[in-house]
Amino acid sequence: MLNDQLQNKINGKTKPIGALGTLEEIALQVGLIQSTTSPAIKKPTILVFAGDHGIAATGLVNPYPQAVTAQMVLNFLQGGAAINVFTQLHNQVLIVVDAGVNAELGHLQQENFIHAKQGMGSRNYLDGEALTQNEVEKSIAVGKQLVLKIATEGCNCIGFGEMGIGNSSAAALIMHCITNLPLSDCVGVGTGTNQEQYKTKLATLEKVAALHQVIHMANDPLKLLAAVGGFEIAMMVGAYLSAAENKMVIVVDGFIATAALLIAAKISPEILSNCLFAHNSQEQGHTKMLEYLKAKPLLQLGLRLGEGTGASLAIPIIQSAVAFINQMASFEQAGVSTATE
Amino acid sequence: MLNDQLQNKINGKTKPIGALGTLEEIALQVGLIQSTTSPAIKKPTILVFAGDHGIAATGLVNPYPQAVTAQMVLNFLQGGAAINVFTQLHNQVLIVVDAGVNAELGHLQQENFIHAKQGMGSRNYLDGEALTQNEVEKSIAVGKQLVLKIATEGCNCIGFGEMGIGNSSAAALIMHCITNLPLSDCVGVGTGTNQEQYKTKLATLEKVAALHQVIHMANDPLKLLAAVGGFEIAMMVGAYLSAAENKMVIVVDGFIATAALLIAAKISPEILSNCLFAHNSQEQGHTKMLEYLKAKPLLQLGLRLGEGTGASLAIPIIQSAVAFINQMASFEQAGVSTATE
Repeated sequence: MLNDQLQNKINGKTKPIGALGTLEEIALQVGLIQSTTSPAIKKPTILVFAGDHGIAATGLVNPYPQAVTAQMVLNFLQGGAAINVFTQLHNQVLIVVDAGVNAELGHLQQENFIHAKQGMGSRNYLDGEALTQNEVEKSIAVGKQLVLKIATEGCNCIGFGEMGIGNSSAAALIMHCITNLPLSDCVGVGTGTNQEQYKTKLATLEKVAALHQVIHMANDPLKLLAAVGGFEIAMMVGAYLSAAENKMVIVVDGFIATAALLIAAKISPEILSNCLFAHNSQEQGHTKMLEYLKAKPLLQLGLRLGEGTGASLAIPIIQSAVAFINQMASFEQAGVSTATE
Repeated sequence: MLNDQLQNKINGKTKPIGALGTLEEIALQVGLIQSTTSPAIKKPTILVFAGDHGIAATGLVNPYPQAVTAQMVLNFLQGGAAINVFTQLHNQVLIVVDAGVNAELGHLQQENFIHAKQGMGSRNYLDGEALTQNEVEKSIAVGKQLVLKIATEGCNCIGFGEMGIGNSSAAALIMHCITNLPLSDCVGVGTGTNQEQYKTKLATLEKVAALHQVIHMANDPLKLLAAVGGFEIAMMVGAYLSAAENKMVIVVDGFIATAALLIAAKISPEILSNCLFAHNSQEQGHTKMLEYLKAKPLLQLGLRLGEGTGASLAIPIIQSAVAFINQMASFEQAGVSTATE
């Protein structure tokens, strides 16, 4: 019923039927999420979760040293990162969350910085579980609370970004488990460019996958998160769950953000109807994740940065879709003749 | 030299090398167009040229009646069309030009409406040439003057849109001539959806192509414009030429706008270095046009509306690229460690 009302409204606008392509699909979906034929995007927000990964200290999977996670958090707070530039340009709110950075950041007091540290980074999953079950549950709960607060303050469109040296490895292991694809399809170059580094990364993660029997955890996503996850990923899982509960439009970013979504959707498959997929990352596994989710990314810009940058860039497209369904004249209003068949 | 300086600046930003994908290419290109390592996008403007086509009165190629061109111009002036909504949302200037609409519009006085009518639509190219050589030259000259004025007023980024019932047929004939591809590769459904209409359109245009020997005109683009062009397309050709002369960033819209570019680039091939391609239209010929131009479209949103809508939607991406090269911190500035090789 609402579906038909939305489609009629879209078809009545002064344009050939279907001529706004994907924007028409977005307008329909946002209308359905918000249960209205006059949807609106309010206070679009990017929430960036930062956390460290024990494996990163080994240097086996990451070209950048672990210290870069904390350095980049400082960069976020000083306004110098890509996500700062994009959110500022597009009038979006940016909030940074210390989910589990391996550095003392308590002295950094800033309105858009949330102290939610659950630990000094995850443990090295070559030696045992990365997180305890309790840490996983607590992180998910905190992620939920954060998004509930943001929703209560009037935001209805949210994208999740992340910063965490080593987290493309966690994402690859999660993907391997949930999609059942070979690990070599899931592991990408991450932030590296070097073929030698890639080989070491893949060999290391093969070892981890075998050690934890990751492939058998698909029906126990919290156990999977404990085995190979990180604080920022677990918190993002909670964030997705709460965003859907609060009827928000969820703008899904790249490889790591989509890995977290794979887990959230295992817990609550219906959240996918709230999701718009911002872009197709250059990180090779992301394309296959999107195929697995039957998701159609809005942008194809060869990005592989994380931080929520793809989500930030896609929000103006979503706003354009919402603007056309609300503001364009109908054939009737404009006195424009329709096509003859 | 400038190329290296720009690339070094891009590589020094706090992100892995290449991680902003296409945005890095855009930043480089805009820097080269503007001869600076600190490019800027000023007063982004969409200029929509409207004109009628004699063929449209026959109903052989178009599902919408010819009167829709003038009706849509009124819709533009009243703010009800898609291009109004998008330019307003994204803070772009919208200017509408009566290049040759088959209706008296002289009484419509509005700041963003330019009266540059060169005739009451083109003639039916089934009966003879669509435009005289003089009309072609005059239209190109006017297009140049209009863009020069806009450049003088401070705009350095421009996209061209069009409105003209029947103009996807003119564009298909132009494409057929310049690219030497079979007409069936060039003719698309346009604003229609009906297979029967498509067959009649293709058969009609086969006749026109044979009548004018369109395929032999590739080295005389002005003659081609006279044979099958329209006032809005000829004016757009002049607009492209002037935009490049004035070192503007040119945002190329869809099928008809790209057909005009094919002609402009025949006259002055170097203008292509000023062009960013906004999107890949759903109109089938557009993909092959882009391949012919070795162009990589920024967006793939299944649009097929014209009006400059694709260009309008792509400008925020271009602005994002320019913002990152200017505003992001370098590794040095932010105190972030670089990758180990």
